[in-house]
Amino acid sequence: MTPAFRTAALIGKSDATRLPDTLDQITATLRARGVRMLMDPRTAGASRTPPDEVMELGQLPFRCDVAIVIGGDGTLLGCARLMAEHGVPLVGVNLGRLGFLTDIQADRAGVVIGSLLDGEFAAESRTLLEGSIVRDGVAVYTTCAVNDIVVSRGAPGSMIEFSVALDGEFIYSLRGDGLIVATPTGSTAYALSSGGPILHPELAALALVPISPHTLSNRPVAIRSQSRIEVTLVRGEEARVNFDVQSHRVLEEGDVVLVRSAARPLTLLHPPGYRYFAMLRNKLHWNERTA
Amino acid sequence: MTPAFRTAALIGKSDATRLPDTLDQITATLRARGVRMLMDPRTAGASRTPPDEVMELGQLPFRCDVAIVIGGDGTLLGCARLMAEHGVPLVGVNLGRLGFLTDIQADRAGVVIGSLLDGEFAAESRTLLEGSIVRDGVAVYTTCAVNDIVVSRGAPGSMIEFSVALDGEFIYSLRGDGLIVATPTGSTAYALSSGGPILHPELAALALVPISPHTLSNRPVAIRSQSRIEVTLVRGEEARVNFDVQSHRVLEEGDVVLVRSAARPLTLLHPPGYRYFAMLRNKLHWNERTA
Amino acid sequence: MTPAFRTAALIGKSDATRLPDTLDQITATLRARGVRMLMDPRTAGASRTPPDEVMELGQLPFRCDVAIVIGGDGTLLGCARLMAEHGVPLVGVNLGRLGFLTDIQADRAGVVIGSLLDGEFAAESRTLLEGSIVRDGVAVYTTCAVNDIVVSRGAPGSMIEFSVALDGEFIYSLRGDGLIVATPTGSTAYALSSGGPILHPELAALALVPISPHTLSNRPVAIRSQSRIEVTLVRGEEARVNFDVQSHRVLEEGDVVLVRSAARPLTLLHPPGYRYFAMLRNKLHWNERTA
Amino acid sequence: MTPAFRTAALIGKSDATRLPDTLDQITATLRARGVRMLMDPRTAGASRTPPDEVMELGQLPFRCDVAIVIGGDGTLLGCARLMAEHGVPLVGVNLGRLGFLTDIQADRAGVVIGSLLDGEFAAESRTLLEGSIVRDGVAVYTTCAVNDIVVSRGAPGSMIEFSVALDGEFIYSLRGDGLIVATPTGSTAYALSSGGPILHPELAALALVPISPHTLSNRPVAIRSQSRIEVTLVRGEEARVNFDVQSHRVLEEGDVVLVRSAARPLTLLHPPGYRYFAMLRNKLHWNERTA
Repeated sequence: MTPAFRTAALIGKSDATRLPDTLDQITATLRARGVRMLMDPRTAGASRTPPDEVMELGQLPFRCDVAIVIGGDGTLLGCARLMAEHGVPLVGVNLGRLGFLTDIQADRAGVVIGSLLDGEFAAESRTLLEGSIVRDGVAVYTTCAVNDIVVSRGAPGSMIEFSVALDGEFIYSLRGDGLIVATPTGSTAYALSSGGPILHPELAALALVPISPHTLSNRPVAIRSQSRIEVTLVRGEEARVNFDVQSHRVLEEGDVVLVRSAARPLTLLHPPGYRYFAMLRNKLHWNERTA
Repeated sequence: MTPAFRTAALIGKSDATRLPDTLDQITATLRARGVRMLMDPRTAGASRTPPDEVMELGQLPFRCDVAIVIGGDGTLLGCARLMAEHGVPLVGVNLGRLGFLTDIQADRAGVVIGSLLDGEFAAESRTLLEGSIVRDGVAVYTTCAVNDIVVSRGAPGSMIEFSVALDGEFIYSLRGDGLIVATPTGSTAYALSSGGPILHPELAALALVPISPHTLSNRPVAIRSQSRIEVTLVRGEEARVNFDVQSHRVLEEGDVVLVRSAARPLTLLHPPGYRYFAMLRNKLHWNERTA
Repeated sequence: MTPAFRTAALIGKSDATRLPDTLDQITATLRARGVRMLMDPRTAGASRTPPDEVMELGQLPFRCDVAIVIGGDGTLLGCARLMAEHGVPLVGVNLGRLGFLTDIQADRAGVVIGSLLDGEFAAESRTLLEGSIVRDGVAVYTTCAVNDIVVSRGAPGSMIEFSVALDGEFIYSLRGDGLIVATPTGSTAYALSSGGPILHPELAALALVPISPHTLSNRPVAIRSQSRIEVTLVRGEEARVNFDVQSHRVLEEGDVVLVRSAARPLTLLHPPGYRYFAMLRNKLHWNERTA
Repeated sequence: MTPAFRTAALIGKSDATRLPDTLDQITATLRARGVRMLMDPRTAGASRTPPDEVMELGQLPFRCDVAIVIGGDGTLLGCARLMAEHGVPLVGVNLGRLGFLTDIQADRAGVVIGSLLDGEFAAESRTLLEGSIVRDGVAVYTTCAVNDIVVSRGAPGSMIEFSVALDGEFIYSLRGDGLIVATPTGSTAYALSSGGPILHPELAALALVPISPHTLSNRPVAIRSQSRIEVTLVRGEEARVNFDVQSHRVLEEGDVVLVRSAARPLTLLHPPGYRYFAMLRNKLHWNERTA
């Protein structure tokens, strides 16, 4: 039986104590099926089994056809931004408590990854954002984000003022701590803490969630994912834009942060039986009662 | 020039003092273009110009190809439930301050309706809900709603307990005052007061908004409008289901309220220049500053 | 050693399966210390040990100097309304998971109640509300509430309109589902589900929490507990007022619901080591992380 | 008739175009009553009438017995921090739309200030906060705040983790954007935008309002103003503490921000007829309806 994937990149949270044991399980499974294994130098350093090839993180997406990420949601988020642009699907193995995105338990990783390679998985598309900083009409920085692109106040602590346009139409101007543009994936992260709605992953939508808005009637808005969003920084010292709360850039007044869905979505592979709401209930403790 | 519509139903808020003057403008415009006019008895009673035919409200949608509603959002909502099933588009004339749905000012009604008949309008589709009460497997009541279908606690004042399923999958069970299933149109009505997100009308989505949920982490969820939602009343005396807060039925424990999008959407006609967010800014006072 | 209390009323949730065993522990402890025991008929029916006297619930507060309530928060709430007016302190034993108010575990009830009788307890005062319905200037109904007094919409499901005055000064008029006037004790109950703040029990404050307010900028307000609050029903069919969500009355338009702190507070007895915030962390799952 | 105050400091928002005209009114009024006038250099530069003495801002509170501030709420806030420690009462004249704190209209400033000097005013005490950064057990910085003291995330954009203790008792640890400790005065500023309750100025309370908390059940808490609050930064790069969003300091991990009420409150003087809720209704647009 030919495995569903021929070359797998293994990327682990290198400082996690459970990583070597989990890698043992996965590498044995891959080897048994003749799947070629690539690792970045840090993961290779933690692995008891040497991979077929070691290469820099940035090279992996060019060479693998699946990425197996071992860590937590943060680890997967970082890899997803790397892999998604190249159309490489991702599988998430969680070394701790299951995450929103990493839905394979470490101690079952060998068996579950084996089934995945045998073709037993559900592929799920998730909207990926592409964001650019446009200064004086020129895009000076562009990157992508899985969860959210956030324009927020700077160090001096005072609020910022910004205006928002949708497909060229002015929506509102607002003063506050900032604005989150979130994908369905990101709707259960920072946006949720700021009062945004949960967007079902199959809904082709983005959420615009104001952070501590000065205008009390300004509420989260859900829009079509095909929309073109422009957030213009009207006023604000050292305001910045964040991508998945992993990388950021300082903005100048007048800068436009342009956000739209990336042409290619992110693909996540889930083991059979994965259910979005079952995961959500578990993560948000919806089973629990207060009285 | 042939008017865009041949037979118009005129339905007014009969106790409004400004109704006769506004009807004068509109009837003159319709007559000048040779458009046939129908009215329900109460509107006919308020009109200085007699219509071509008077008939019961319930008969109008079978006979007209456009409905001109003169009143407020509540008046339009009631007519919309009537007209939408028959595919009749609606135009809203507001006798007071402009509404979320009624976007033509009474004092300009003649001119604007004239332009509409000349073909200058934008037709907008809005999702319409269809809701049924299923008792012991049988649908005992079915109706439609433009804004929302709400399952809520009854008179004794105590909370209810209900469970929600989406396309057959269990989502959560919850205790609280109730649950709102809102269309994008309804997302700026009751659902907004209860903490729900604003859904852009072009987004094919519904919002599930809990009312005073016992579980603090239970938040509004936006889902695809094609979803089939089942709300089962687990426990609750005299709980009830409301349709657009205009009609309601008492529920029994075990009843399932089944909600899905109606096959046919509601069609609203807007004068040229209508912009959703401009309306929203005006209605929600987004221009105003508190400091 | 003389016990801290001479006559104890024992009131249990009569349909709870764990009640007889828990009563066994408590009656043995009371008997050993020579404390006289009173029970209502239903608790006596569930008790294997007969009390010294059986009397109707309504008679108990006249005859006991402490009330031991065995059940959940709801059971204690009902008894508290009964006892507080007579200055009888309460102890809460929980048959299930610990509550906001019932902080003694059933399986330790004998030992802990013993310590309490030996004088090892902390007495805590909690604000009690007194509410009246004033119709045409006359108070037609008056009762008290431990958690909250709630004015809310009636059966037809539409919103109500009401105005609020504080010490005779007009505060606001509002349309919505209703208004909660909550004590610190009630601030973690219904008011919390509706977006109200948590009020520390030592803060002499009440919270005014609107339910699904039409005006989006209307937010919860905390005021001094000495304030005199008047909620006037301006418009609303079958609107009602609820006391601790346990008893309610239907309101007529023009009725005023007058709320003020009762002259006498409610007294709760806690075992040594009770800490408000430790209880709150446990009940609200503040220890838990979502990612 | 002896004026209520002998020496007034006049402090204006120096770049405001309406400042000179407003100063004209006020200086004429003060002169007519023989009240000594002090100004800081910038206000003196804008005044057509020279004051009796010009001195640095920091010297004014030592020499005046009332401060008349002409500008907006921000201007008054800055002066209040300066004056309150010295017990100097403040009067606020607003050059634009009335503020939360500045309740005298510029065009009526002469008349109203005249009445104030004649003794027609209501003096209102407002809680003032004192905050210290305690590092390795030593207070390395101490200042006061009228509105709020805010511990918040730093430039890199990721959340911070902190723990909160009240009078030495652990309350909770939390991850999020930060925490606002607000006075009743500050409860209508940043804290309100972040979901906090409005605290009536006569309520001796502070609000603890989490900013975008990771734990969804973590809600604003109102506590007694006599409480001693310690916020310990557990984790967070470049986190900082802000005082009235006017001055800030960078925190190190392990730093404790200690907050308590200042011994001396802030005193505001209001013209007769001032009503807190009338001001609030105006500022928060509670009169306005959305439908």
